[in-house]
Amino acid sequence: MIYKTYSDQKIFVLGAGAVGCYFGGMLARAHHDVTFIARPERTQALNTSGLEMDCKTFHETIQVKASSDLSTLRDANLVLLSVKSLDTERTLIDIKSVLSSKAVILSLQNGVANVDIASNMIANPVYAAVVYVAAGMIGQRTMKHHGRGELLVGSLGITSPKDDQNLTDICKLFEGVGVPCSIAPQIKRDMWLKFLVNCSFNAISGIGQISYGEMVKSPGIVKLIEEITKEFLAIAVLENVNITLAEALAANESIATTMVTQISSTAQDLSRGKMTEIDFLNGYIVELGKRYGVATPYNESVHALVKMLESQIK
Amino acid sequence: MIYKTYSDQKIFVLGAGAVGCYFGGMLARAHHDVTFIARPERTQALNTSGLEMDCKTFHETIQVKASSDLSTLRDANLVLLSVKSLDTERTLIDIKSVLSSKAVILSLQNGVANVDIASNMIANPVYAAVVYVAAGMIGQRTMKHHGRGELLVGSLGITSPKDDQNLTDICKLFEGVGVPCSIAPQIKRDMWLKFLVNCSFNAISGIGQISYGEMVKSPGIVKLIEEITKEFLAIAVLENVNITLAEALAANESIATTMVTQISSTAQDLSRGKMTEIDFLNGYIVELGKRYGVATPYNESVHALVKMLESQIK
Repeated sequence: MIYKTYSDQKIFVLGAGAVGCYFGGMLARAHHDVTFIARPERTQALNTSGLEMDCKTFHETIQVKASSDLSTLRDANLVLLSVKSLDTERTLIDIKSVLSSKAVILSLQNGVANVDIASNMIANPVYAAVVYVAAGMIGQRTMKHHGRGELLVGSLGITSPKDDQNLTDICKLFEGVGVPCSIAPQIKRDMWLKFLVNCSFNAISGIGQISYGEMVKSPGIVKLIEEITKEFLAIAVLENVNITLAEALAANESIATTMVTQISSTAQDLSRGKMTEIDFLNGYIVELGKRYGVATPYNESVHALVKMLESQIK
Repeated sequence: MIYKTYSDQKIFVLGAGAVGCYFGGMLARAHHDVTFIARPERTQALNTSGLEMDCKTFHETIQVKASSDLSTLRDANLVLLSVKSLDTERTLIDIKSVLSSKAVILSLQNGVANVDIASNMIANPVYAAVVYVAAGMIGQRTMKHHGRGELLVGSLGITSPKDDQNLTDICKLFEGVGVPCSIAPQIKRDMWLKFLVNCSFNAISGIGQISYGEMVKSPGIVKLIEEITKEFLAIAVLENVNITLAEALAANESIATTMVTQISSTAQDLSRGKMTEIDFLNGYIVELGKRYGVATPYNESVHALVKMLESQIK
C-alpha cells in the first residue's frame, strides 16, 4: 500500500552527492523509479557499475539510472533537490522550463535560503527537509554511510490540504523504504537549529581541517562558537525563529559529543579543492546582519577566512 | 672610532633565530666579540661550521662563538634579546642572577610587552628596538636575508643622560657595521605601528599559510584586517598611543604591497610545528581589551583559530 504511493512515480535526485545518493539510493534499492542527475563522470560510473551503498546495516551495489541531461526531468513527480546551495539558483534556471506542473520539489540542502530561492523561481510546490545523516562519497559511485539517516519534512509557507497530502505521501514513501521521516510542524525552527550547528562547526572545522571533537578541546574555540551562536540567535529572532541560548548551546554540545571524529562538509570541500557552501552558512548570517543592521563580527571573521581559503583553490 | 665603542665589549645574542643571526651576524662579521646563545644543536652547528649569511648584498660564512650555557652571560656588556616573546619571562628568570650590573639589554622582539616584562624582572637597563628585516633560518646555521635590516631604538621609560649615552653607543655600534640604526624619540609609537601590522597580518597568514600579497586579494580579508585595525587603535589610545586610522591603514597597505610573497612568522611557526607568538600579538590586544572592557571580536576570532592550530601541533 505504502509502496504504491509513489511506485508509479518518477523520482529524480538532483545532485548525486552523499545526501542524494543515500536517500535516492534507499528508494532505488526498494525498486522505486529513481534517476540520479549528476555530472558526466559520475553518471557514467553509476550507469555502468551501479551505486555502491556502504551502509551501517548493509553493503550492497544497487543498479541505478543516472543522467546528465536535465531535460529528463520533464517526467518528474518528485525531485529530491540535493545540489549544493551555491548551485540552487543556476539549477532552478536550468530546469524551470522543463518541470511539469505535477512535479513536487523536496530540498535536502543545508542552510535556510534554498527553499525560498526555489519557491521564488518556480510555481511548483517546494518543501523543506531537515536531513540528519553522516555520509560521504568515496570516488564516483560509492556512498559511505557513517550514521543516522532520517528526515524531517515540512512546508515553509502556509499549508493547503494539497501540501498536507504531498508531505504525507513523501513521508510514506521514505518510511516505506526504511528511512524515518516525519512531518515537522515547526520545520523552519528545525531548519534553523540545524543551520545553527552548521554555522557553529562548519567554518572552524574547515579552517583547521579539524574534527568536531578536537576543535572543542581548544577553550578559545568553545568561546568562539558561543559568540557565533549568540550572533546567530540575534538574527534568528529577527527572522521569527526563537531559540534560547541554552537550547542552542545544547544543540552544539550534542554535535561535539556525538560526532567527535567528523570533519565538516566545508572542511571536505576545501580539502578536495571545491567551492564551499559558506556563503549560505556564516555568510548568510553576515548578510542578514547587514540587512538588519546587526553586527556579526564573529561570523564575519570565520566567513572571511573560509572565503580566503576557497580563493586559494586552483 | 665608532668601531671602538664596543670593540672591547662582550655582546651576547640571546636567541639565535633569524633576527638574532642577522644583527648578531653583522656584528660578528665586523669582528666584534659576539656569542650566540642557542639550543645545543644550533650551538654545535654554529661552532663547528660558522654562521652562513646569505644576504642581499653578500654571501659569507662567519666564524662565530655559540653556547648553550647561560652562565656565560656574566661577562655581557650588551645583550641582544631575540628569543620569542613566549620565552622572555623564562629566559629572564634564568639569566637574572647571572647578569652583571654593567649589562645593557636591547629587545629585538615582536609585540609590545617584552620590554615591560624584562624591565619588571631585572634592574639592568632594557631598551626597545623596532626591527625591520625580512629573514629566515634555513637549517641550523644558515640565515637567509630577504630584505631591509634596520633598527629603531629607544627607551620606553623616562630617559636619563645614561640612557641617552647607551642608546647613542648602540646606534654607533650598529651603524659601524652597516646596520642603519636611529634613536626614535617616539619608540613606543613605532613599536605599536609595527605591532599593528603584526596583528593585521600574522594570524591570517598563519591560518591560511598564505602570503601577504595573496591574502589581501580576498575582499573579506581586507575588511577583516580593517576591523582588526580599528579594535587595535581603540586599545592603543587607551595605552596612550595615538595612531589615526588613515596612518594605520597606510602601514598595513605598505606591508601588503612591499612584502607580497612574505608569509608571517606565525605561519612559519605553525608549518614547522612550533608554538607561535600569537598570545603577544592579537592575544595581547584581546587581553588588554578585557582589562579595559573594550570588545575585540575580530582579534579574538583570529587569536582563537591560531591557538586551535597550535593545539594541533604534536
